Amino acid sequence: MELLKERIRKDGIVKDGNVLKVDSFLNHQIDVKLLEEIGKEFKRRFADCDINKILTIEASGIGIAVEVARAFGVPVVFAKKSKTKNIAGEVWTSKVMSYTHGREFDIIVSKDFLGKNDKVLIVDDFLANGAALEGLISLVKDAGAELCGCGIVIEKGFQPGGDSLRNKGVRLESLAIVDAMDPETGEITFRE
Amino acid sequence: MELLKERIRKDGIVKDGNVLKVDSFLNHQIDVKLLEEIGKEFKRRFADCDINKILTIEASGIGIAVEVARAFGVPVVFAKKSKTKNIAGEVWTSKVMSYTHGREFDIIVSKDFLGKNDKVLIVDDFLANGAALEGLISLVKDAGAELCGCGIVIEKGFQPGGDSLRNKGVRLESLAIVDAMDPETGEITFRE
Repeated sequence: MELLKERIRKDGIVKDGNVLKVDSFLNHQIDVKLLEEIGKEFKRRFADCDINKILTIEASGIGIAVEVARAFGVPVVFAKKSKTKNIAGEVWTSKVMSYTHGREFDIIVSKDFLGKNDKVLIVDDFLANGAALEGLISLVKDAGAELCGCGIVIEKGFQPGGDSLRNKGVRLESLAIVDAMDPETGEITFRE
Repeated sequence: MELLKERIRKDGIVKDGNVLKVDSFLNHQIDVKLLEEIGKEFKRRFADCDINKILTIEASGIGIAVEVARAFGVPVVFAKKSKTKNIAGEVWTSKVMSYTHGREFDIIVSKDFLGKNDKVLIVDDFLANGAALEGLISLVKDAGAELCGCGIVIEKGFQPGGDSLRNKGVRLESLAIVDAMDPETGEITFRE
């Protein structure tokens, strides 16, 4: 998605440790017009799928998911991060390792809002190691729902999450795949 | 907002301890069409204000804020909840007491995204004790930004937050004010 790549080149900031800061337009301050175009692009890419639910994870996925859901005319469900040890039986739950925070947490979705009649598109802002996406996919499988695919705004192509999911047969669409970033020069190389 | 009140009457669930569950359409599963109408309604109510930024707090405020921002044609900034003890100087920060979780947490917004040129509408899903809203207002003041007002989807009118803020002169628009709820019968009484 050229509009997105241009924006990342213009406003993205490359930091040491493979960090790409896009918090001026995607995940702290949000450019809602860009989000709207992102929603339309995912609708275009998954137009052949009979999607009836968008699934994401709090917090930075929610804004994106809302605009994708508007493009499809379907509801959003967002998984919650939980520190609760004992989780009641009315939720689907999965464990996710956070590399950013260096700890494992549970993600939960109420069984009322994810079930066997759902055809699900999972969306999120970033894909790096793929831990969050694997957790969300696990919730979809446990619920007996159908996974139509995953839509990612920015994939870090030099980290293993994307290729690992593709190798498992997951239909994954990333709007921008960053293959290399240089914190010295700020240069960002996108996959063609 | 009649559409919202009808939806709360139809799908809201009253639980013991002054809990109103609206997670089938507002803050776990999200009805994006309803959110769109909510966005338009806030635009109508604050049409006289020259708002250039929507401020909310993660997580459940984000979806609402995105649709309000779309109605106004301005960006969203969402405050992050932080457990970090030492916060660097590049953020505005405030302390918020969470009655739900029984502990205090910090909320932060980057100084890059909230400053003296901003005319801010704060939005959130619920207002009860007003702790989150007071924290967000404090960030706006610290940033030297102008607070145009606060837009709340559901105010619990039997809890002190709303009246306390109005008494302080804050322009507060709540789309539905619940004055009483009965967990036995499920009956919900809205303020006229």
